[in-house]
Amino acid sequence: MAALSASAALATARALPVHNFSAGPSLLPPSVIERVSAEVRHYEPAGGPLPEIRFTGPAFGDLIETAEADLRALMDIPSDYAVLFMAGGATAQFSLLPLNLLGARTRASYVDSGYWSRRALQEGRRYCSVQSLDADPDRLPERVASESAYCHITSNETVDGWAYAQLPRLPTVPLVADMSSDFLARAVTVSDFGLIYASAQKNLGATGLAIVIVRRDLLGRAASSTPAVFDYTRQSAARSLLNTPPTFAVYLTTRMLQWVRANGGVAAMERASLRKSARLYDAIDASAGFYVCTVPIAGRSRINVCFTLRDEALTAVFLRRAQQEGFMHLAGHSQRGGIRASLYNALPDAAVSALAEFMRDFARRRG
Amino acid sequence: MAALSASAALATARALPVHNFSAGPSLLPPSVIERVSAEVRHYEPAGGPLPEIRFTGPAFGDLIETAEADLRALMDIPSDYAVLFMAGGATAQFSLLPLNLLGARTRASYVDSGYWSRRALQEGRRYCSVQSLDADPDRLPERVASESAYCHITSNETVDGWAYAQLPRLPTVPLVADMSSDFLARAVTVSDFGLIYASAQKNLGATGLAIVIVRRDLLGRAASSTPAVFDYTRQSAARSLLNTPPTFAVYLTTRMLQWVRANGGVAAMERASLRKSARLYDAIDASAGFYVCTVPIAGRSRINVCFTLRDEALTAVFLRRAQQEGFMHLAGHSQRGGIRASLYNALPDAAVSALAEFMRDFARRRG
Repeated sequence: MAALSASAALATARALPVHNFSAGPSLLPPSVIERVSAEVRHYEPAGGPLPEIRFTGPAFGDLIETAEADLRALMDIPSDYAVLFMAGGATAQFSLLPLNLLGARTRASYVDSGYWSRRALQEGRRYCSVQSLDADPDRLPERVASESAYCHITSNETVDGWAYAQLPRLPTVPLVADMSSDFLARAVTVSDFGLIYASAQKNLGATGLAIVIVRRDLLGRAASSTPAVFDYTRQSAARSLLNTPPTFAVYLTTRMLQWVRANGGVAAMERASLRKSARLYDAIDASAGFYVCTVPIAGRSRINVCFTLRDEALTAVFLRRAQQEGFMHLAGHSQRGGIRASLYNALPDAAVSALAEFMRDFARRRG
Repeated sequence: MAALSASAALATARALPVHNFSAGPSLLPPSVIERVSAEVRHYEPAGGPLPEIRFTGPAFGDLIETAEADLRALMDIPSDYAVLFMAGGATAQFSLLPLNLLGARTRASYVDSGYWSRRALQEGRRYCSVQSLDADPDRLPERVASESAYCHITSNETVDGWAYAQLPRLPTVPLVADMSSDFLARAVTVSDFGLIYASAQKNLGATGLAIVIVRRDLLGRAASSTPAVFDYTRQSAARSLLNTPPTFAVYLTTRMLQWVRANGGVAAMERASLRKSARLYDAIDASAGFYVCTVPIAGRSRINVCFTLRDEALTAVFLRRAQQEGFMHLAGHSQRGGIRASLYNALPDAAVSALAEFMRDFARRRG
């Protein structure tokens, strides 16, 4: 970070805007940052600093109720689904899913579509017999084992830059989706799913919190070894307040949900994701092979645009120059390398246009 | 809170200082609040807003390393103990302890000294055969079952206002302590314990985070059903970065650890706890029975001073008048009623002196 901070400092010194393309935690809109900073000092409904808010008091009760109501409105969540706010991130859910959903069954299906779905699958293997399936949404219904307690998919693969063009539907087995990285960035028919979960650190910007949306008929199946506070049924009965929740993360989530609502809702976020990602894919596709994206066009993620440079040796140069111009955190995942531009909801169009221009310019000079 | 906010507003309108006696999350020192508010906007080592800090980057690595180093210095933690920063609070650890520590054993001992130790004990029963013991530290060594994987105690009972005057020692069975509410407020010989855990929401003011200090020879015993991210051994190997941690809570913890170091360390905090609690117990004992504390003197908590009014009907009047004078969150735990004044490290002496004066005055007028 020393070198990186120096680069950022250089960009700042030249009065260039700094754009955060990190895969997570997501950047936050400046208006949200300002409000959080002010409310850390004094949060009016609690009559004191935000970090001191008591989770048993009405001010926090209002926050978590508002978060649930805003999320229900944004995603049109039917009333037969519970909304849970759980401590920890998506990786915790890799374990909590089988512990909560297997019930008397001993098998679950997992679609292997990339790095994160494989992580979920590997954790699932610790709890049950796993049917591993490849990512072909059309053939999924006929191939999923009928005895599976659920079928797990990852809607957007953050590391691989791949996503379902159309989310699958499963008439028989409950479909479970890790939507961490495209949560609230694409329209979803909640009733197509048995359970949706998402780490709040991507589009909601809050670490240490996961949101779980679960059809109520799937509750009541937790294994006896499930820690009480990680039991969906107990947390649902306690309205996610079985114990002290990560209050700052819940608060930040409410602010981001309000921001999404004020900025056109999920439909507007989806249009923006399409528009922003298209700008970068256009720059890649028009580079005559200087930039390479191996993801088939139909599966290209609108959130994490992953590509490499034909001349791999130029990757480090690209990243250094990008930083100097204020384009931060563009290095690909450590397991994969290359370049990754993450385009979360709070990233303005202008940042993406500027990056596309930088890419074209870099290709011209070095191509 | 509507009524309460109105009372607080009244206190503010009369330019009275507002004192937060809440049992948790703890109040924070004004200097820490100011710094957090500023760093939410811009955290220099990360070159951007604090909530956007990337947990895989060096700025966050520095934070968590500093937290561990400061904690080791403050508590003189020997090198054969690992320090873990775990998502969730102390209640999660009620389950994670047996999952991580039982190993091949099927029994554990739990001292029942009040509300929270009983909660831990009840959760322990879900995983093993429990030996329940009463809180007599002198007789503990002879009574604890030798086949127990560990013996669990709660050093300070937040709800009951009781604490060990002297912490027990156990030569044979690993002693495990929930120190959530007196963590860094009393001197502790870490080597007397197999494991110490504490929710960071009390003296460290950060919700959604627990600190676990565990002797390394107790690692490697996790049950196969332990979720990977809640496995002490795996988190220890990953330096608590197996997945995205609750970054804001870790950050806030570092700021509070620095504050404790800058203000004289644990010894100074312990002296302050003794001094502050003595002021309130003196006011109770000098009230000729107007205020009643049923906790035997030797077991009186220095952190949570719990008492009732002889005339129970006056409790609501006391609480309302106290709020009007700026003394907030003095109602006892919902399971217990009465009055509870929590005296965390950040609570200044002046707040406690003012409350003692208010108590004397209230007794004079109403006694």
